Amino acid sequence: MKITAIIGSLRQSSIHRGIFESYKELAKEFFALEEGVIRNIPLYNEDDGDNDIAHQLAEQIMHSDGVIFFAPEYNYSVPGVLKNAIDWLSRATPQPFAGKPASIIGASPGAIGTARMQYHLRQIGVYLNLQFLNKPEVMISSSFDKVKNGVIQDEATIEFLKLHAGEFQKFSSQFLKK
Amino acid sequence: MKITAIIGSLRQSSIHRGIFESYKELAKEFFALEEGVIRNIPLYNEDDGDNDIAHQLAEQIMHSDGVIFFAPEYNYSVPGVLKNAIDWLSRATPQPFAGKPASIIGASPGAIGTARMQYHLRQIGVYLNLQFLNKPEVMISSSFDKVKNGVIQDEATIEFLKLHAGEFQKFSSQFLKK
Amino acid sequence: MKITAIIGSLRQSSIHRGIFESYKELAKEFFALEEGVIRNIPLYNEDDGDNDIAHQLAEQIMHSDGVIFFAPEYNYSVPGVLKNAIDWLSRATPQPFAGKPASIIGASPGAIGTARMQYHLRQIGVYLNLQFLNKPEVMISSSFDKVKNGVIQDEATIEFLKLHAGEFQKFSSQFLKK
Amino acid sequence: MKITAIIGSLRQSSIHRGIFESYKELAKEFFALEEGVIRNIPLYNEDDGDNDIAHQLAEQIMHSDGVIFFAPEYNYSVPGVLKNAIDWLSRATPQPFAGKPASIIGASPGAIGTARMQYHLRQIGVYLNLQFLNKPEVMISSSFDKVKNGVIQDEATIEFLKLHAGEFQKFSSQFLKK
Repeated sequence: MKITAIIGSLRQSSIHRGIFESYKELAKEFFALEEGVIRNIPLYNEDDGDNDIAHQLAEQIMHSDGVIFFAPEYNYSVPGVLKNAIDWLSRATPQPFAGKPASIIGASPGAIGTARMQYHLRQIGVYLNLQFLNKPEVMISSSFDKVKNGVIQDEATIEFLKLHAGEFQKFSSQFLKK
Repeated sequence: MKITAIIGSLRQSSIHRGIFESYKELAKEFFALEEGVIRNIPLYNEDDGDNDIAHQLAEQIMHSDGVIFFAPEYNYSVPGVLKNAIDWLSRATPQPFAGKPASIIGASPGAIGTARMQYHLRQIGVYLNLQFLNKPEVMISSSFDKVKNGVIQDEATIEFLKLHAGEFQKFSSQFLKK
Repeated sequence: MKITAIIGSLRQSSIHRGIFESYKELAKEFFALEEGVIRNIPLYNEDDGDNDIAHQLAEQIMHSDGVIFFAPEYNYSVPGVLKNAIDWLSRATPQPFAGKPASIIGASPGAIGTARMQYHLRQIGVYLNLQFLNKPEVMISSSFDKVKNGVIQDEATIEFLKLHAGEFQKFSSQFLKK
Repeated sequence: MKITAIIGSLRQSSIHRGIFESYKELAKEFFALEEGVIRNIPLYNEDDGDNDIAHQLAEQIMHSDGVIFFAPEYNYSVPGVLKNAIDWLSRATPQPFAGKPASIIGASPGAIGTARMQYHLRQIGVYLNLQFLNKPEVMISSSFDKVKNGVIQDEATIEFLKLHAGEFQKFSSQFLKK
């Protein structure tokens, strides 16, 4: 099983990039995780016509078996850079996200752990026809304590993410059998 | 009273630009409306440091008496380009949006008229500390029939927007008196 | 396949009851639809202990293969009477909704067709672990024209609901195979 | 200034009742807080016609200067009993909530502190035309540690609620001056 990871922050040393790297390792026994890079997708403007980078990412997603978003919460919602990438990807034909299993992994310095972002992304997923895993939800609080130098330091978080990877693999395989 | 208009679509002949132009005229008796241009704000990346264009827009908003968003709905939420601009603006000190009255004008070809986008933008506004007008909400359905060649053709829509402008002026003046 | 219908309005001649009756007929070739009655479930109060009526409804749902909510929008959200029933049902062990496919059918006199209610109900469904069908969403506008004397009069609405029933049957059968 | 408190849980020893009692005391220097009792409001059914208890509560709210909701989160949204009361109250003429300042105080045993409930309630408030205070939001986490025997034990929480009461008083007085 091959899953595309979309990282919703462009910063090189982003906490979500660190979580992605750790998760990729710990999820290896369940599926292969490969980044779908959004960094070079320009601002969406219908006047510009198609974009090759967005087109290639759409292809990558379409040929994968599911999507995991690693994303921070900005201003109580989805980061603009992630939403902008989704706005490009949703123009592709056929729809790259349609019917794919999906999940969200979010981390925040405070207590809420990106909950506000996640329900907005789930609503976007209704349009995209993503099948989001319900449980477990991953909302990592106090992220500055748990993730340091790009590596998850907190054992409980690592165990929880392993549990998540196993559940996501089981959930996703339902849709594979189609 | 001076209000900043933020247009949530970059397309030159965007329907929301057309609505903005018409609204600017019909609202003249209530307030001056001036575009706060988001077109040249880059993708948000904390590694890049401050951005002059975002900084200037923050200044413009701070010196205005309120904000009206003219925005489409993309994928059941706020357009990425608009959210990206907000993500930049929210970094400015002092916060440009804090305490400002605000409203949303959205139009869609279908029946829903951007409702899904508007409640996401209102949630973002809690963080930004925007004071959103509750009523009337402006959700223009069947926009291709009502807006043609960048001009609102529908008399009922024009009358409704005049009503909105008057209500927004009254609402906003409460906060001016502070 | 046996699906439980929950009607989110207590009024005898509710439009949503009418839609349920019509839908039950037109969906017959796809699945059997049976009402899960919420009328006699009391206001939720933890001091009262368990409730037999809620308990029986939980059993009915658990032994069915999915759930369809027929519900109006009250005050931009889920009707209190429906949410109250859900609050009772969510206490049952095992969780009656867990893993069940679900869908929402809403109708409103205006244009929005209960969109605001539906995304709130979908968020509730994340906790309940309902698997909501993404497409087609059913938001019936101008309901007073389309539903009269408890019967759907509008041919396009009837065809659309047949399409929905077929899609829901296909979607739900994925989860049956587990 | 006289504020109506609505408690969104019917349980006698509800944590939110405890928080209400403590808050009433600490907010005394800013405003008088008086409960608007929802306990005896029946399930909403349009067939039943008007309800005296709901009518009296509507009167009480209308003659107060604002509303504070003390409410738990049930199933990722507003408690059914609270939503049911709102559904009744919204039928009153004139609208009891229209133009009133409002705020939400929520507490949960976990980390999220009712965030999911609060944004749903804010969306409901758009329809009711409530003017919600943006900051500070009150989401009390680990409520079982902080509230014991119906009394807030945590000093930081008490200080924070005093700050909130002062801010709500300032915010509300803007609307009084109308």
